[in-house]
Amino acid sequence: MPLASPPEFDAAFRERLLDLLKWRRDVRRFQRTPSPPGAIERLISVACLSPSVGLSEPWRFVLVEDAARRAAIRTCFEDCNADALQMQSPDRAALYARLKLAGLDDAPCQLAVFADHATAQGKGLGRLTMPETLDYSVVVAIHTLWLAARAEGLGVGWVSILDPARIAAILDVPQDWTFIGHLCIGHPVQEDDTPALEREGWEHRHARAGAVIYR
Amino acid sequence: MPLASPPEFDAAFRERLLDLLKWRRDVRRFQRTPSPPGAIERLISVACLSPSVGLSEPWRFVLVEDAARRAAIRTCFEDCNADALQMQSPDRAALYARLKLAGLDDAPCQLAVFADHATAQGKGLGRLTMPETLDYSVVVAIHTLWLAARAEGLGVGWVSILDPARIAAILDVPQDWTFIGHLCIGHPVQEDDTPALEREGWEHRHARAGAVIYR
Repeated sequence: MPLASPPEFDAAFRERLLDLLKWRRDVRRFQRTPSPPGAIERLISVACLSPSVGLSEPWRFVLVEDAARRAAIRTCFEDCNADALQMQSPDRAALYARLKLAGLDDAPCQLAVFADHATAQGKGLGRLTMPETLDYSVVVAIHTLWLAARAEGLGVGWVSILDPARIAAILDVPQDWTFIGHLCIGHPVQEDDTPALEREGWEHRHARAGAVIYR
Repeated sequence: MPLASPPEFDAAFRERLLDLLKWRRDVRRFQRTPSPPGAIERLISVACLSPSVGLSEPWRFVLVEDAARRAAIRTCFEDCNADALQMQSPDRAALYARLKLAGLDDAPCQLAVFADHATAQGKGLGRLTMPETLDYSVVVAIHTLWLAARAEGLGVGWVSILDPARIAAILDVPQDWTFIGHLCIGHPVQEDDTPALEREGWEHRHARAGAVIYR
């Protein structure tokens, strides 16, 4: 039996939750003001409430504070992005790259997130046919952190134009840790309810109806 | 400039959000009462507010209503689970399997979720070095749906002991859709703030401190 009484979520809460989802953004422009002391550790604690396959809790968080390591990550982004740019029309891609670099330069906090593929926790349950669910568990934890951050007025930007093996080497993590994502965290320069890529004319959101079929 | 005024999230909201995260569960026992009309479609709409790499919105939702297809998915689970059970100590694994089957038998809604690897949306942005971020975007959408469901009093159970190729065949989806997860959705038999696997003694949650390092 549960020890505590289950919470009731009312319409007002659901409305606020919807606001949170609508105003969560992949933030690219950050103020340089530091986050409140302990904020990142608190957000990581909240992220650890996430579901994980077999209760494996495979998430591993690396707070990147060292200037040389940050510089190496920035260089890694620049190198990977140079390749990526060749596949894109140059003007918009260059704009996008500048914005992402701005995030790496300005955000007071950088958090690299890994999945521990060697963890014995969970005893392998639930992931024999789909081992990728271990990584998925870490993705969900990142999303939890993202929402909790936004609820504190902090923005998160996910940088994915990186070479996972190189990031693992730069951060000197155990070899069984797989890189999932690199997060810039800090106070955003501006709040918005429209994705930056839509504002910049890169892409627009599509109606939900096309994404649902019945079988 | 944003057209609407950004919402302010206060301490009371953050407390409720924490409750939501603490009381979200991977639900295995469902009441058979149908969900309110339109509830699933509404939850899918909310899920579509999720972030996606390059604004690709690759999530595709398949509402599985046909009895024969549901039976085929159940058989797929049983076959995959038979293999998985051989890797586990038999008593606990059998209990776990029974609970998961109960979800597939009782939940009024079954939703299979895929990633469309052929989508042109987003123009490939952000996923040259890490193409798995397309799948990660779908994982985040599942998590959004999960939280929104819990806020409506609906539970979600994620079934991962399945063969992705077989599920795609059973549901006759386009060949570029990659299976991410199969969700059982409905009113839970009981609310709880402790994971079922912890209640059953399979595994327990660990302290957050071991999951953070500084570099």
